[in-house]
Amino acid sequence: MSAYTNHNQDPRLHGIKTKIRVVPDFPKAGIMFQDITTLLLDPKAFKDTIDLFVERYKGKNISVVAGIEARGFIFGPPIALAIGAKFVPLRKPKKLPGKVISQEYILEYGRDCLEMHVGAVETGERAIVVDDLIATGGTLGAAMNLLERVGAEVVECACVIELPELKGRERLNGKPLYVLVEYFDI
Amino acid sequence: MSAYTNHNQDPRLHGIKTKIRVVPDFPKAGIMFQDITTLLLDPKAFKDTIDLFVERYKGKNISVVAGIEARGFIFGPPIALAIGAKFVPLRKPKKLPGKVISQEYILEYGRDCLEMHVGAVETGERAIVVDDLIATGGTLGAAMNLLERVGAEVVECACVIELPELKGRERLNGKPLYVLVEYFDI
Repeated sequence: MSAYTNHNQDPRLHGIKTKIRVVPDFPKAGIMFQDITTLLLDPKAFKDTIDLFVERYKGKNISVVAGIEARGFIFGPPIALAIGAKFVPLRKPKKLPGKVISQEYILEYGRDCLEMHVGAVETGERAIVVDDLIATGGTLGAAMNLLERVGAEVVECACVIELPELKGRERLNGKPLYVLVEYFDI
Repeated sequence: MSAYTNHNQDPRLHGIKTKIRVVPDFPKAGIMFQDITTLLLDPKAFKDTIDLFVERYKGKNISVVAGIEARGFIFGPPIALAIGAKFVPLRKPKKLPGKVISQEYILEYGRDCLEMHVGAVETGERAIVVDDLIATGGTLGAAMNLLERVGAEVVECACVIELPELKGRERLNGKPLYVLVEYFDI
């Protein structure tokens, strides 16, 4: 049995949940992939998704929305524009053209790395980190480290979907995580 | 000598131009890379950029905004949300989880490929294709082909920056191209 649940009872969440597609066996056998591209095809559900984040972060003195390549680039910019914050892309190695700081992190098999432009974020800025999904939390943890290394305060991580059974929330160094949809029995 | 020029005289364009950074020798020696990440750091200039596209496409019966991975994911979604269209990500191979159609295209050295989900766009839909920059036009041409192969009408391609000396505009099969900023002497 699989199920979406959520403690948030906003009526818009039902429409959002129904637009997320589960693709079995991607990227490999046994993985039930949560596909947000079908959500993007529904202008109302996509707008509701962004609105829920904007309502949460507007007026909270957040000046940085950091988005993780590549699906964090889809959700982060509309939030940044609506709350009047800068958008900071966090990218895979060798994609950003300027000087960068890098943060390695551990995957199930091997390592990966995220980079941020030097000078994009200043000491004391208040930031949120945006991605489509939190699984084990490794990528979000690396993103938070990048921001904290330059002196920014990570206020919260924001994702459309959480896979609670993977306990990614526990890898965010005690920082809060806000999600719209939880998916169990992956 | 290098210069930005544009026939469009909207006063917001000056602010946009000044926020685009040129990074020499990226990704290889001799290339003057047009870096839009500095534009994203200025909430006013980023909003002006999106507003200029929205003002052009609002009310034009466009139901599809297709964005090219990865920087087209930054500009496409805010436009799609503002005009009430769906956002369709066009991705590099093996990134989209569902069934896809693929379009190869030729690069200076070798080939590359873009993919689109089957079912994302329907016959008769009116689409724009969004990316940050048009150089030789190969990627945008492949994106247009994907949309036209499923029966959509590509109304226009929309980019923040054009490098006119590379003549990418001539590779768009006669379809119009709308850009905010032209950069010469690359």
